[in-house]
Amino acid sequence: MSALTPDNFSLLEKQGIELPSWAFGNSGTRFRVWTTEGTPRDVFEKVADAAEVNRVTGLAPSVALHIPWDKVDDYAALRRHAEDLGVALGTINSNTFQDEDYKFGALTHEDDRIRRKAIDHHLECIDVMDATGSRDLKIWLAEGSNYPGQTDMRARQDRLNDSLRTIYERLTGEQRLVLEYKFFEPSFYHTDVPDWGTSYAQVATLGERAMVCLDTGHHAPGTNIEFIVMQLLRLGKLGSFDFNSRFYADDDLIVGAADPFQLFRILVEVIRGGGLNNPDVAFMLDQCHNIEAKIPGQIRSVLNVQEMTARALLIDHAALSAAQSANDVLGAQAVFMDAFYTDVRPALAEWRESRGLPADPMAAFAASGYQEKIESERVGGTQAGWGA
Amino acid sequence: MSALTPDNFSLLEKQGIELPSWAFGNSGTRFRVWTTEGTPRDVFEKVADAAEVNRVTGLAPSVALHIPWDKVDDYAALRRHAEDLGVALGTINSNTFQDEDYKFGALTHEDDRIRRKAIDHHLECIDVMDATGSRDLKIWLAEGSNYPGQTDMRARQDRLNDSLRTIYERLTGEQRLVLEYKFFEPSFYHTDVPDWGTSYAQVATLGERAMVCLDTGHHAPGTNIEFIVMQLLRLGKLGSFDFNSRFYADDDLIVGAADPFQLFRILVEVIRGGGLNNPDVAFMLDQCHNIEAKIPGQIRSVLNVQEMTARALLIDHAALSAAQSANDVLGAQAVFMDAFYTDVRPALAEWRESRGLPADPMAAFAASGYQEKIESERVGGTQAGWGA
Amino acid sequence: MSALTPDNFSLLEKQGIELPSWAFGNSGTRFRVWTTEGTPRDVFEKVADAAEVNRVTGLAPSVALHIPWDKVDDYAALRRHAEDLGVALGTINSNTFQDEDYKFGALTHEDDRIRRKAIDHHLECIDVMDATGSRDLKIWLAEGSNYPGQTDMRARQDRLNDSLRTIYERLTGEQRLVLEYKFFEPSFYHTDVPDWGTSYAQVATLGERAMVCLDTGHHAPGTNIEFIVMQLLRLGKLGSFDFNSRFYADDDLIVGAADPFQLFRILVEVIRGGGLNNPDVAFMLDQCHNIEAKIPGQIRSVLNVQEMTARALLIDHAALSAAQSANDVLGAQAVFMDAFYTDVRPALAEWRESRGLPADPMAAFAASGYQEKIESERVGGTQAGWGA
Amino acid sequence: MSALTPDNFSLLEKQGIELPSWAFGNSGTRFRVWTTEGTPRDVFEKVADAAEVNRVTGLAPSVALHIPWDKVDDYAALRRHAEDLGVALGTINSNTFQDEDYKFGALTHEDDRIRRKAIDHHLECIDVMDATGSRDLKIWLAEGSNYPGQTDMRARQDRLNDSLRTIYERLTGEQRLVLEYKFFEPSFYHTDVPDWGTSYAQVATLGERAMVCLDTGHHAPGTNIEFIVMQLLRLGKLGSFDFNSRFYADDDLIVGAADPFQLFRILVEVIRGGGLNNPDVAFMLDQCHNIEAKIPGQIRSVLNVQEMTARALLIDHAALSAAQSANDVLGAQAVFMDAFYTDVRPALAEWRESRGLPADPMAAFAASGYQEKIESERVGGTQAGWGA
Repeated sequence: MSALTPDNFSLLEKQGIELPSWAFGNSGTRFRVWTTEGTPRDVFEKVADAAEVNRVTGLAPSVALHIPWDKVDDYAALRRHAEDLGVALGTINSNTFQDEDYKFGALTHEDDRIRRKAIDHHLECIDVMDATGSRDLKIWLAEGSNYPGQTDMRARQDRLNDSLRTIYERLTGEQRLVLEYKFFEPSFYHTDVPDWGTSYAQVATLGERAMVCLDTGHHAPGTNIEFIVMQLLRLGKLGSFDFNSRFYADDDLIVGAADPFQLFRILVEVIRGGGLNNPDVAFMLDQCHNIEAKIPGQIRSVLNVQEMTARALLIDHAALSAAQSANDVLGAQAVFMDAFYTDVRPALAEWRESRGLPADPMAAFAASGYQEKIESERVGGTQAGWGA
Repeated sequence: MSALTPDNFSLLEKQGIELPSWAFGNSGTRFRVWTTEGTPRDVFEKVADAAEVNRVTGLAPSVALHIPWDKVDDYAALRRHAEDLGVALGTINSNTFQDEDYKFGALTHEDDRIRRKAIDHHLECIDVMDATGSRDLKIWLAEGSNYPGQTDMRARQDRLNDSLRTIYERLTGEQRLVLEYKFFEPSFYHTDVPDWGTSYAQVATLGERAMVCLDTGHHAPGTNIEFIVMQLLRLGKLGSFDFNSRFYADDDLIVGAADPFQLFRILVEVIRGGGLNNPDVAFMLDQCHNIEAKIPGQIRSVLNVQEMTARALLIDHAALSAAQSANDVLGAQAVFMDAFYTDVRPALAEWRESRGLPADPMAAFAASGYQEKIESERVGGTQAGWGA
Repeated sequence: MSALTPDNFSLLEKQGIELPSWAFGNSGTRFRVWTTEGTPRDVFEKVADAAEVNRVTGLAPSVALHIPWDKVDDYAALRRHAEDLGVALGTINSNTFQDEDYKFGALTHEDDRIRRKAIDHHLECIDVMDATGSRDLKIWLAEGSNYPGQTDMRARQDRLNDSLRTIYERLTGEQRLVLEYKFFEPSFYHTDVPDWGTSYAQVATLGERAMVCLDTGHHAPGTNIEFIVMQLLRLGKLGSFDFNSRFYADDDLIVGAADPFQLFRILVEVIRGGGLNNPDVAFMLDQCHNIEAKIPGQIRSVLNVQEMTARALLIDHAALSAAQSANDVLGAQAVFMDAFYTDVRPALAEWRESRGLPADPMAAFAASGYQEKIESERVGGTQAGWGA
Repeated sequence: MSALTPDNFSLLEKQGIELPSWAFGNSGTRFRVWTTEGTPRDVFEKVADAAEVNRVTGLAPSVALHIPWDKVDDYAALRRHAEDLGVALGTINSNTFQDEDYKFGALTHEDDRIRRKAIDHHLECIDVMDATGSRDLKIWLAEGSNYPGQTDMRARQDRLNDSLRTIYERLTGEQRLVLEYKFFEPSFYHTDVPDWGTSYAQVATLGERAMVCLDTGHHAPGTNIEFIVMQLLRLGKLGSFDFNSRFYADDDLIVGAADPFQLFRILVEVIRGGGLNNPDVAFMLDQCHNIEAKIPGQIRSVLNVQEMTARALLIDHAALSAAQSANDVLGAQAVFMDAFYTDVRPALAEWRESRGLPADPMAAFAASGYQEKIESERVGGTQAGWGA
């Protein structure tokens, strides 16, 4: 049985997980978007909710924005608003899936006008980054096709490369482009960046500041995700994580909820590959709280990542290496599972308190009155969602 | 090489596939619903579009309705409207997934008030059936949960049985209840009727007029769907098909588009089990034309079913049985594939013409001017979709 | 944070998990069967190894046999051998997948002679059960086909029912027939009992002592196995478990190794449905230790089931029900996960010692010298495997 | 409706598909290897059977060998034997999955001695290539692990790269190394080259004559394989195909048997990307005829590839491009499906006869007496299989 060491805690202390602004708005399935009282009406309110997550956990120092959902006239004001609340503005996410022009593609579109429009949208996102001080431009391509024969997959791949290059060249200084891949949805037959191999092959042609974004919900059934984590770290191209969990498709559930052991294995490879607290490897959430409370859903999520990181840190590497080298299958597995099965929660609670944070952030939030306050204050207006 | 016989044609002549009214409205994914010109604003216009599919194919004699999306004040008027256009009103589909009360369940809900409300909705659907002359009440349960522990799956199963019994007892005469099953979505962790076994176990307790509905898109990856068709026919409980196709999840693509050979195998088992032109086994479509033209999408779909039925009828059963009995694997497979690979399209085109139908229904529709007409006429109002 | 109560321990004390004799022999993939020193040469040695698992865990009171692999001339002698070692002979497993006659089927075969031979094999198994005092005849059907069209699935289903009926009628007294289902392998296109629905539909026609066997590795990707556990318990037809774990196909890994949280959820439903320590619901392992040490592999497995049962027992049902009834998604999930994340290992170790068992059974076995003993003694002869 | 043109036929005339020597030996599952009369006892007999496939189809000009299964003392003699029968010796396949030393890895093994042994085995394979005149060394890595924690995946990846480099450097002249990837099996938790991305990343570091081998059965459920074909052709790294088909896992069924439309889509991308009759993109079969006749199984397979290539060639590219550019989803799909649904078999039969080949190669083989001859002649000895 292992226990967390001061070294472990000093690593945990540095951990930060970026929150997605859209997790605080309404979301749902094609069948229904359920609304909830207190949902933010604009990005200022989203940032306030995100700051609340950070206040009770100390784990969420920044908020990712989505353009155009989070478009404002004055980004400097938004930035000050965030900083006043103790958080930073983070990754800028582009959107090429809700404009009528993008019905059949955006960065891959055959029509130069539409493709240029999609590129320009990304350049505008970079302008936002300049204003917000964001480092990363994250591109998730919803593009693809629904029927075999509908489109020329090869030509799209080439056009995608051209588009990405134009966008990449506009980046300045420390700014990066991270390209997400996704197995399917909203396209059903093919997606233009379906797997890590495609994202890697694309960004490898761009340059050092183009990286792959790994969303844990975007793989085929049975995929060994931690292997991909290992490989991308090895290749120096793991730019960021979108954490969530899934049972079947891209369910966007709370990270660690569907398969806690998978999250453990992923974090073990992150640590193994030098990805923990490495600025090159951003940790973000990308989730939908369709039916559960949103702010507590985010608190639960960052705590899940923290707790599982703590378990992963517990691995006795000397013992593990010895058993691995001896091909002692059960011995190695025992060392590995011992870390997973150790209950780190009491130690983490104590440690949180020692740092002036609530021992139980979920309870602290419930007791804070914040939820009641926003429910009474946020009356009228249009609740934020994916539509805008 | 085989050719269609007069016996085959007389079977094909009787074939009818019910169209879903909602296929003519807008649909989409959680990311976007694309709109198209000419989309119906109400159920009268949907029925008109469906009648157009029937006019050029002779294959779509009825239209399924969805309550409340297709609610009208005067069902007798709607029925006359349909009959004037040469089609009948068919299956009534209930909806328990869009009312705020149903966020956590409907027929399975722990709260008696909500459960009673959901039951009453179904009784109201039966009232509609009485007015429209519909035989089948189709229940697709969107109910379930997203997180392990969220709900008591066992208690829900018992409540579901009680609810279904109350609904079943209200049926009169020839009316039937068909219970659809679905692997996942919109719930991600558990659905209350996830597989054919559950649907079968539930309807078996109700009575003879309770049957299973098999939607071809509602199975786990790799499921042998034709085996389930065989089994349900064998058990006398295959009440209806919801035809569509899929690559990954419940994509609701055009039937036969993703895996034509799978559709062939399904139809072979339908014929083998006596399900062809059997009034007990209703053929319906359940599809979404998110990005393709809707009326042509439905025409293409019923033609796919017809063409594949024709191929399935071509199987030389004497030769197949002989090879099967001799355990001649390749010989049996050759007989089977010969039917699949035979091009029945020219013979069907000729036969259509001989019956006063267009040889090429897709071309006939395109040339008819119907699409242009509805695009110019259907201006203003709100396009129909899943919302209402 | 919860702790195990005396009530929990008294339930854990009654727990027994049957071991498969074949887990102690060699196994592998189609590519290679690796051999290991000390592997038993016959069923007497297998039983001795199984007894060793029981000796250090107190969890494995019986051993399942596989006919013909474990055929002996004198079952009474084998029974005495087992009893002398403190274990009983358990379930008898039939084998219809290794005789040349069964290449294209056994209980489903079109040829009456072969089908009769397969039935007779099962009657012989029942004779063995009479001699060994076994209660359960477990039938796993490896039958199916590799190519569409190869065989008539429907006729096979009817023949299967006839065959099962003949076998069932031969059972006496408390004897039961449990019918296992399997998604695929060794047949690739169709298996004759692919899912729980088929097994259920088959055994339901036989009688009360015909039940379903659920092997945790025999489902399509993404299947919610605990739902099936719940449903079969609800229907009164869950006869037994074959525990193991899997990442992709029927990997037959150590139970709980691939997805510990899934094992937890399964055991929660077992307890919820009254299946724990219920003689009607037999717990068995069915695993392959291809590359890891076999006896420790079995010890690890029964400990995994014990530990996860303990976690499942920790659930605070009052709190869970309250949260569920309030539709407090995160609250219910928190109660559920609290039990999963609690480290029961120290308490179990202490409790084991209090009962005269080793606190650490893995270490106790390693220190016992048993492995060294069998490696030096079991020289010559043919190591047991799946071949015979 | 389209018809094959002279240009199409001249492309088809050049098509060649390499046969695997092991397809003629016995194979099976972990449960059983069924034997058949007439099975070759050595590689000379395998080559003779392969030549028979070529004799009746004109499609199979070469035979791949597997070392050590096909090891002989005198490769020059084997080469003359093949050439006398009208075929060439093709790709050399290495084997690192059946030696006791390789239980825990070969090219990735931590132990330098074992890793060197595995490298030397490949160097020996290159010696064989020199003797046989083979161009390609194909490496399928069966290596991996069964349990999380069992091994250090990252270190293995680095060692793999070192090993491959040493092997690659030994290649001479036109010789190539093709690295196959496989999702799972015989390892269940991780495989060292699980996906095209890993194979691509590895071979990209080696040099121009290191390429990826795509086995159509080695992907996760739902994977869009033709996308990978497109991408690898685009990247200039598709070295060869291992054709077969599958329903669930790596079933190794006859190519085109499980999903004919998938094979069509793959061949469409091959043609689109310039991979047809391109010496850089080798076409091979890799199949197991567990229960069906082996020589006819291979004949059926190469015919399936030929027939599907013919269908793919039928696509009206002008019409397809026009519809694609107009975003006419159904129009493009119609052009695509028209080619798939066209029955090319009569035209191919006629064309075969015009070239002095049997119109119906399956019937020609059956009538040839070859099978009867080998069944009577090949008596005694040990039938070839995967064992050696």
